[in-house]
Amino acid sequence: MNRPTPRHRHEFPHFQPITTRWSDNDVYGHVNNVTYQSYFDSIVNRYLINANVLNIESGAVIGLVVETGCHYFSSIAFPDDIEAAFKVAHLGNSSVRYEIGIFKQGEALCAAHGHIVHVYVDRQSRRPVSLPSALREALEILTQPRNA
Amino acid sequence: MNRPTPRHRHEFPHFQPITTRWSDNDVYGHVNNVTYQSYFDSIVNRYLINANVLNIESGAVIGLVVETGCHYFSSIAFPDDIEAAFKVAHLGNSSVRYEIGIFKQGEALCAAHGHIVHVYVDRQSRRPVSLPSALREALEILTQPRNA
Amino acid sequence: MNRPTPRHRHEFPHFQPITTRWSDNDVYGHVNNVTYQSYFDSIVNRYLINANVLNIESGAVIGLVVETGCHYFSSIAFPDDIEAAFKVAHLGNSSVRYEIGIFKQGEALCAAHGHIVHVYVDRQSRRPVSLPSALREALEILTQPRNA
Amino acid sequence: MNRPTPRHRHEFPHFQPITTRWSDNDVYGHVNNVTYQSYFDSIVNRYLINANVLNIESGAVIGLVVETGCHYFSSIAFPDDIEAAFKVAHLGNSSVRYEIGIFKQGEALCAAHGHIVHVYVDRQSRRPVSLPSALREALEILTQPRNA
Repeated sequence: MNRPTPRHRHEFPHFQPITTRWSDNDVYGHVNNVTYQSYFDSIVNRYLINANVLNIESGAVIGLVVETGCHYFSSIAFPDDIEAAFKVAHLGNSSVRYEIGIFKQGEALCAAHGHIVHVYVDRQSRRPVSLPSALREALEILTQPRNA
Repeated sequence: MNRPTPRHRHEFPHFQPITTRWSDNDVYGHVNNVTYQSYFDSIVNRYLINANVLNIESGAVIGLVVETGCHYFSSIAFPDDIEAAFKVAHLGNSSVRYEIGIFKQGEALCAAHGHIVHVYVDRQSRRPVSLPSALREALEILTQPRNA
Repeated sequence: MNRPTPRHRHEFPHFQPITTRWSDNDVYGHVNNVTYQSYFDSIVNRYLINANVLNIESGAVIGLVVETGCHYFSSIAFPDDIEAAFKVAHLGNSSVRYEIGIFKQGEALCAAHGHIVHVYVDRQSRRPVSLPSALREALEILTQPRNA
Repeated sequence: MNRPTPRHRHEFPHFQPITTRWSDNDVYGHVNNVTYQSYFDSIVNRYLINANVLNIESGAVIGLVVETGCHYFSSIAFPDDIEAAFKVAHLGNSSVRYEIGIFKQGEALCAAHGHIVHVYVDRQSRRPVSLPSALREALEILTQPRNA
């Protein structure tokens, strides 16, 4: 088994700061593994909402998570300042694979690296749909590192 | 019953930004009432940790919550940018009452206003202790509005 | 100030078991104060949904929380088995005050005692409405202890 | 890419009921993907604590999560009754791979299937250690389906 290694921040085109919370730490005194994944959901959806290509209240198309995964390399703890970063690793007809890194602020290598696969579906029928073109364009921007 | 009214930001001496998260919104599309209280814990403890008067890993004295309460005035929702603010409303021998306001960024009136009462105890025995002087000093600063 | 005292289980007409979770414990090794309040939301809404008087997906009327509060008496910790209990303490035209106790399984006195005030509103306008009669009936049952 | 398929309950030797919570549902009206992973942590650690082979407060050895993953097949929603199930898929010198299924109560196929990899470490140094023999024995029981 190849042990995965932490990703470098230059691999990611988009960053957002995250304020850690008291409740992020578990009984072992560091951010719980599950909490990282709540950062994943937040960075991806915030990007899409701010780009005006996702309306979580009333848009016709929503993204459902069908797969997640994460590798953890080093620990972070409230009240650390952290950043989430992501890129679009695969852009299919109705699905998108996001790869996300969680960094202590300013560090070169991530503390954790994971992914989410979204399938975009009709809000009512929950059946897959082709990615709307505005959504696709907003995601294509993030298929390359910032300085590529 | 007197209906409480939202507090003004000039009542509070200390502010911290909070990044909202996807999971903060509940099925009704706004930040769930319980989530506000996780903001309360975070702002108070972050202030104390950054002031070097609380060590959540190994300090001899820790703060346990014995009472909380909150009034909700208007809704906020991920991905809104928000701020938490607090003041020290009562400083006893071993207990402290914190009053906290949650504001949409830049707004004059809070979306919610609540309180926490901490009793400071010995980490091992969990019995109340007099507030250590450094902790008391860090809290006295916050008994008055910023421009008082 | 009168220090509140823990309530007895015979004060409550309705109980539900709750399975504690790893993430309920905070860095101090017990269930975090905020988590108790997530139990409050859950017991009240589960009762109303199971009684067929609240449809959180599509009902015309929903309950918004305008006030919460809690006193904490003793600690509980994952993986303890616990129970939530509640009664209806006040039934207004559009608002309801729920009082909730959190008990270690089988104990006579609660570990924490709190309340939520719901205002029932039209889902679209978010304006208060009179409690629908089926909802009112389901709540009247819980205004008295079980064996009153 | 082979699309994974939901696992059958007969693959799992150990089950625990989980009470869903109001806060488990996200804005799309179903249990959020991240919440499933909090179920994973809970079922594994509860089993180990109840078997007296893990002491999260003061034991010399603790399990840190180095990898997680999950595939989602169908949705569940508060207030559904659900069960978590797990087996030990790999038992190394210091690491353990747990595979977990989340089931609506009584259903044959899981709604989600995931895994956690724990590395057991010394609490102080956080360096990997060989699995203590009592812990290893408690885990060996779960390497086979119940009726194997």
